[in-house]
Amino acid sequence: MGFESVCIVGAGRVGKTIAARLAERVPTRTTGRELDVGEADLVLLCVPDGAISEVAAAIAPGPWVAHTSGATGLAALDPHKRRFSLHPLQTFVLERGPEQLDGAWAAITGETDEALAAARGLAGLLGVEPFELDDQDRPVYHSAAAFASSFLVTLHEVAAELIESAGAPAEALEPLMRRTIENGFRHTGPLVRGDWQTVERHREAIRSRRPQLLPLYEALTDATATLLKVR
Amino acid sequence: MGFESVCIVGAGRVGKTIAARLAERVPTRTTGRELDVGEADLVLLCVPDGAISEVAAAIAPGPWVAHTSGATGLAALDPHKRRFSLHPLQTFVLERGPEQLDGAWAAITGETDEALAAARGLAGLLGVEPFELDDQDRPVYHSAAAFASSFLVTLHEVAAELIESAGAPAEALEPLMRRTIENGFRHTGPLVRGDWQTVERHREAIRSRRPQLLPLYEALTDATATLLKVR
Repeated sequence: MGFESVCIVGAGRVGKTIAARLAERVPTRTTGRELDVGEADLVLLCVPDGAISEVAAAIAPGPWVAHTSGATGLAALDPHKRRFSLHPLQTFVLERGPEQLDGAWAAITGETDEALAAARGLAGLLGVEPFELDDQDRPVYHSAAAFASSFLVTLHEVAAELIESAGAPAEALEPLMRRTIENGFRHTGPLVRGDWQTVERHREAIRSRRPQLLPLYEALTDATATLLKVR
Repeated sequence: MGFESVCIVGAGRVGKTIAARLAERVPTRTTGRELDVGEADLVLLCVPDGAISEVAAAIAPGPWVAHTSGATGLAALDPHKRRFSLHPLQTFVLERGPEQLDGAWAAITGETDEALAAARGLAGLLGVEPFELDDQDRPVYHSAAAFASSFLVTLHEVAAELIESAGAPAEALEPLMRRTIENGFRHTGPLVRGDWQTVERHREAIRSRRPQLLPLYEALTDATATLLKVR
């Protein structure tokens, strides 16, 4: 199903990106806490997770109401019955435009066929690839996104700190990280070769140079060894 | 300085890629354990770390001798005096060719100005960007590469396992991971917002669905919180 007009609540990174894309395709307005939603037949909440319930409760019943949170359930949209969620599995920055949605997937959740059709309609307007996600699976789904994005940033910062402690340039890491993805995430490095001597050298070096990073090295080594079944 | 001809020992992923690039630029041969190095003025060891000492000791003195290991010191090249190392900070696959070296950086280590000049000469032939690395800094440098590449594969596998446990497609993760890099590794996600409630939801979900992954989640959360100074 299609929407005739959309009102977006919130103008953060997600709200601005979605508004820019929708404005290319359908009458779109953005509102803040004054909730001036006009005649919109979809009100899309792009607000912090903790604000969804309060904002939803303040919207007069009538239009479809949806949120873009990854971990929040649909109950946060009470008392609305015509409701769904669409979470773009992507990270956004303010300096880029609607093209940030291109190639992205999005988790859609709805309690009825009509709600899922509405969510697919929004995915079509946004140009993202939808997949269905059950409401109770949202937290574990969102934890996967944390591993893929938040913790990827953490890995890079830790690697940068270690390589700089060796007097080497952190920028040298990026081609390696990109190629690791381009090569389809194939296991490489000492563990895949069963080279525990090199792992022990890493441990000693980290213990001596950056001891606070040792627990993370051990946890990642344990997880990797389990995946590779080398332990 | 330049090399007139090079002999590569080993035909694994690194040896084959380097041989393909050098063959475009200088007479190049590859040898196995028979060490038929011919008239080469550089013998480049692309063998497993644990084999470097034995192979180096079996090479008749005369040519430059170098290795491509990340974590191994130059002493492994005894008794050769004209020696250095060059470690391409990149991951290689057999299905690709010498273009895998394009855009990569490489750590070079040498004990004399002449050795460093020789290493730079090889970097020039390979088309990689060299940076100097002290011999005693090799293990901590190599641990950085493990975070950037081996553990990136681990992150992806863990994220894939979690998203699939939610019935969602693992392929949806890749655009997110690529964009996280393209956006310059900016922190995103619940921790940067101080949203500990979402972190607690992740914990509960992982504990219930994949409890064996909880220690890794905690270690990454701790490291991220430390980097963000939110704890």
